[in-house]
Amino acid sequence: MSTPALADSVRFAGDVVEILDRRVYPFEVRWVRCATSEDVAVAIERMVTQSSGPLFAATAGMVLGAREARRDAPEEAAARLRAVGARLVATRPTNNHIRDAVHAVLSATVSDDGARLAGSELVAAVEAAAREHEDGYRARSAALGEHAASLLDDGTRVLTHCWADAFLIATVRAAQAAGKRLEFVCTETRPYLQGARLTAATLVEMGYRPTLITDGMVAAALSDGLADVALTAADRVTLDGHVINKVGTLGVALAARAFGVPFYALVDAPDPQAPTAADVVIERRDGDEVLHTLGHRTAADGVTGYYPAFDVTPPDLVTRIVTERGVHHPKELS
Amino acid sequence: MSTPALADSVRFAGDVVEILDRRVYPFEVRWVRCATSEDVAVAIERMVTQSSGPLFAATAGMVLGAREARRDAPEEAAARLRAVGARLVATRPTNNHIRDAVHAVLSATVSDDGARLAGSELVAAVEAAAREHEDGYRARSAALGEHAASLLDDGTRVLTHCWADAFLIATVRAAQAAGKRLEFVCTETRPYLQGARLTAATLVEMGYRPTLITDGMVAAALSDGLADVALTAADRVTLDGHVINKVGTLGVALAARAFGVPFYALVDAPDPQAPTAADVVIERRDGDEVLHTLGHRTAADGVTGYYPAFDVTPPDLVTRIVTERGVHHPKELS
Repeated sequence: MSTPALADSVRFAGDVVEILDRRVYPFEVRWVRCATSEDVAVAIERMVTQSSGPLFAATAGMVLGAREARRDAPEEAAARLRAVGARLVATRPTNNHIRDAVHAVLSATVSDDGARLAGSELVAAVEAAAREHEDGYRARSAALGEHAASLLDDGTRVLTHCWADAFLIATVRAAQAAGKRLEFVCTETRPYLQGARLTAATLVEMGYRPTLITDGMVAAALSDGLADVALTAADRVTLDGHVINKVGTLGVALAARAFGVPFYALVDAPDPQAPTAADVVIERRDGDEVLHTLGHRTAADGVTGYYPAFDVTPPDLVTRIVTERGVHHPKELS
Repeated sequence: MSTPALADSVRFAGDVVEILDRRVYPFEVRWVRCATSEDVAVAIERMVTQSSGPLFAATAGMVLGAREARRDAPEEAAARLRAVGARLVATRPTNNHIRDAVHAVLSATVSDDGARLAGSELVAAVEAAAREHEDGYRARSAALGEHAASLLDDGTRVLTHCWADAFLIATVRAAQAAGKRLEFVCTETRPYLQGARLTAATLVEMGYRPTLITDGMVAAALSDGLADVALTAADRVTLDGHVINKVGTLGVALAARAFGVPFYALVDAPDPQAPTAADVVIERRDGDEVLHTLGHRTAADGVTGYYPAFDVTPPDLVTRIVTERGVHHPKELS
């Protein structure tokens, strides 16, 4: 089975890290070359990668950091690597993937007897920890994909919103392995067009011919019977079952409810630090993005864009939440 | 009070008709020059104008047709003018504006005693009938605007979808005349961006600073309390209260209902030939439009666009329907 480009979008080329530029994919397949850990941090900051991409960029950045510390004494090396980790975490403070990746790698820089590692020992330990963290994420995504695919019958037509990244790829792979045919309807997901670009291109790579709709067509499409289930990732799920995901998800869930279509949300795990939706801060991004499309001005002068990056879908509108552990009712998470 | 460009977007410059090109407005203020009635038909066909613009283009086209028939004998002139009318109606067969305008003008080509007019008499009669038809539409729009404005309190924040053209302009003028302050949140309305371009630019011309959102942000915006009412035009309203309007309206109505916001639809009159929604054919347009934005490709290769031009909002989701005659409950139209 071939691997879609976005499933393997951070790679080493000798001493250099290359990150697939998701801002222009698939119109251009451009790899941003990062020779230093600082280059990686800048790339994440500038949104070269997104969704689960920063997890892999962060582990790669930590490997570069360990190599940069190769000639340092143990204490210096530890301090340098902590600084690299802090720099990476600061790029996107709300993205738990980076924090978790940095934490996993840093905890491997101390040997079993408590001594700080240095030199090639440190580099080897960091490389192994990075790989282990990546493999763990891939394994959890694969388990999640098995559970999500169990909800999809042969022939199911799936409506997606935005880009569910590793979770979508794993779900499709599991369905394919089980011999289930699927069809896809994707929203374009303005303003960044993750649906029209990333989801659509990846599904094409995986052998499908997705149907694309604009974000305003979701209700019409479900009213017309174009899809059997709605499926999205979730950036965060609260313990009381609220789904925080790319803006537009709430409208998808409302339309799904109105037309009797189940809505499934895929997430690593509910966030124990978010008992309710009130505990989650919704990021407001620069409204200027709403006034442009792929860099072209698409709005009249004199208007102001409003860009809440996420919206909050209450548990009443969520049919099931799927994690690596299984399929859950949104009111039975805790 | 200054007139917004789109309120007066078909004009005579001597013998030539000029039509404001809504495909590029407001990024370019380009007038398409039509020297013949056939030029006008081609312009309508190519979507140079839309919404209520074709009404004014059709009357202007009929005036050009009468001038082209100036040297014809009465029977020839009548036949030529009927052919011009048929050509104009065929440009956009589902647009009642053109059919009604052509019919109104043709009925004026016969004198009171039943004789067919010709020469300068015919031209004068057609010009007068064209003016009368346009004035009638403007008067009905103004009356509708008064009724719509009566639903808006001072300080109301109005969510719009697509471009309600003369009805929106009339509503805003009536509210301004009554000293009511309004604020606007506009959806961009993909794929043609009528909201980001036509509605936003016209509201700016009328003195507002609209807030723009993508089509997927409607539910989030209403959930966040960004608007007090949702207001759209309707391309058609059935006798049993279904609102057929630009795709996306159904999603607006669902979100409005979910968050306790009234939804008002503006229409000339319900369609007596459409007792129920089953009597209305929903136009499917070329899905390729969904894959592009203002001529730029915005979707991955290998996908197929789906583009229902309109959707159907059931009467349960419609708070009030506003016509030139007043404000009506959607279940009490017939």
